[in-house]
Amino acid sequence: MDFQRIGDMKRFSTEKYQKVSLFESDLTAMDVYCLAPGQSQKLHNHKANDKYYLIWEGRATVQIGSEIRELGPGEAALARPGVDHAISNNSTEPVVAVVFQAPKSF
Amino acid sequence: MDFQRIGDMKRFSTEKYQKVSLFESDLTAMDVYCLAPGQSQKLHNHKANDKYYLIWEGRATVQIGSEIRELGPGEAALARPGVDHAISNNSTEPVVAVVFQAPKSF
Repeated sequence: MDFQRIGDMKRFSTEKYQKVSLFESDLTAMDVYCLAPGQSQKLHNHKANDKYYLIWEGRATVQIGSEIRELGPGEAALARPGVDHAISNNSTEPVVAVVFQAPKSF
Repeated sequence: MDFQRIGDMKRFSTEKYQKVSLFESDLTAMDVYCLAPGQSQKLHNHKANDKYYLIWEGRATVQIGSEIRELGPGEAALARPGVDHAISNNSTEPVVAVVFQAPKSF
């Protein structure tokens, strides 16, 4: 499927943040991350990938390397290869972020 | 710079649609396309790239291969390698789209 709507793909769980695939190809992936208040994707890095977080809804705490910022809708961050990154929802409202990753390596 | 805000990067011209770089790396690029009413990026394809359009503001007419759809905020489309694609603003309001491309080949 080469068309998707973020609103159709949102899904939250009380157990952990949800990672929902919007698109996947041999080269790239676009996902939607849905973080309820208190949920996070822990600090990690990808040896050979660029990874982007683009905040769609809510306010997220995003770490790229040693820099930590609170981002709202329309704000984006790039983690280049080998750079530690994390996203957390430290707010009281849901967070929805669009995540692009390339090259695909998972 | 590894943090950006779409709202800071929007730029329109009466001459043609504007392509504004948000991020660029050795692997990928994320741009913002700003199309005034009547403006378009013509049908074309990239031999080896995935290219995504994610509509941020307004209503855009997006063609992927032979399929043409009108997309609004939160709707996204993927043009896989070799697949013709185009984006037009056939509405009376501005269109802002986030465009993600990988591998970088330009």
